[in-house]
Amino acid sequence: MKGPTPDPTPLYAQLEAQIAAGIADGHFPLGTRLPPEDELIRRFNVSRTTVRKAIQNLTARGLIEIRRGTGTFVTLPRITQELTELTGFVEDMQALGHHPTARLLDKTVVPADETVAGHLGLPPATPVMRIQRVRLANGVAVSFDETYLPLAIGEKVVTHDLEAEPIFALLEQRYGITLIEADYRLEAASAGQAVAAALDVATGSPVFLIERTSYSAGMVPVDYEKLFYRGDLIRFTTRLARRKPAET
Amino acid sequence: MKGPTPDPTPLYAQLEAQIAAGIADGHFPLGTRLPPEDELIRRFNVSRTTVRKAIQNLTARGLIEIRRGTGTFVTLPRITQELTELTGFVEDMQALGHHPTARLLDKTVVPADETVAGHLGLPPATPVMRIQRVRLANGVAVSFDETYLPLAIGEKVVTHDLEAEPIFALLEQRYGITLIEADYRLEAASAGQAVAAALDVATGSPVFLIERTSYSAGMVPVDYEKLFYRGDLIRFTTRLARRKPAET
Repeated sequence: MKGPTPDPTPLYAQLEAQIAAGIADGHFPLGTRLPPEDELIRRFNVSRTTVRKAIQNLTARGLIEIRRGTGTFVTLPRITQELTELTGFVEDMQALGHHPTARLLDKTVVPADETVAGHLGLPPATPVMRIQRVRLANGVAVSFDETYLPLAIGEKVVTHDLEAEPIFALLEQRYGITLIEADYRLEAASAGQAVAAALDVATGSPVFLIERTSYSAGMVPVDYEKLFYRGDLIRFTTRLARRKPAET
Repeated sequence: MKGPTPDPTPLYAQLEAQIAAGIADGHFPLGTRLPPEDELIRRFNVSRTTVRKAIQNLTARGLIEIRRGTGTFVTLPRITQELTELTGFVEDMQALGHHPTARLLDKTVVPADETVAGHLGLPPATPVMRIQRVRLANGVAVSFDETYLPLAIGEKVVTHDLEAEPIFALLEQRYGITLIEADYRLEAASAGQAVAAALDVATGSPVFLIERTSYSAGMVPVDYEKLFYRGDLIRFTTRLARRKPAET
């Protein structure tokens, strides 16, 4: 019988996988500097060539970036998300293989301002449920979400653990509200103080703002959201057919 | 016979229409201060109540805004544009009743970088035609467009007056290239120096970046564009149907 076969994976690929795992589990947190080359050589007991090749591959994968004169930093590859169907954050991140979590900041009854009232089809100042969450992908804050629900359903929704249960899932599976479609408004904006704090970025950083009103059967509005995505972490894609040319 | 009937439009509505026309024709340019109330009363020979009512309506229409302590300024209502079909800037603005114009900044042959080459399906460094234009709505710079065309068609397109003729119209009507569909990538970003200068905004201002690759029959890429829209002047809307729920 032969002894155990040596791992056929090249050393640089093993190192690459180890560092990638360290990034995923937060051992090398996002935004921090990776240990310098010499330390990686010592710690993993490999050659300089091996370290360099691993770093090169991780850079190509978008997991780290080299900043001249300052070192190698852990970064997040930009999330590319399709904008072709009404989907929730958890569905989106799972489709992309990112681990979604949520941090609940607040759930409270507020009087609807004109915008909220307009989107939910209610008279201004009607009490509505407002839920504020930070949505994370692989532990990184990607989106700050403000959800407004009509009070009757909102009061039920907030009895659940909103860090664990997606609101779309609660509406559809728990309360039998079938979502049919949604209107989207897309803007590029700058993060104000509250949004910047929630997303852990500098005030004025670019944010991709989506306002979304979701409807159940008969175009009854059931959920109005303001989703502030970190502009440097997300990109949306879609495909559109050419408009039929007008007669000339 | 009766004499000419007096204009049945209320005075404030007449004044409102006159000021709106003055904004449209550049008599009151964007960003400038509207004459003070007393001057409007004198100039149009109307009462203070009439002036106030007209100002109020113009504010509601988004054509002017009152800044406390400084006066009333001419502004541009945010352009709300559907993102549901492949359309060009001129088509979009005409659909919205805005007067589109263009300023040609540059047209030149450049070697395709990796991104451009990838989108046009060419080997990197292939010479391509690059056209840089500022697109204006009612005289206001709304978008800075960088268009990349394969050289053969690009050399024909640039023989035309690109301040007057839309590239989509040239491709389709002059050169018989039928556009079928396009891939869109949407990002929120900050204006770098060149983009800020072209759009006449401060460096770091929010921009809505659209990368668009348009295809003719057989998914042949014919046009790759980077469209930098002023974030404060545009919003895109779309309607999406709910994704069919996965089995649970």
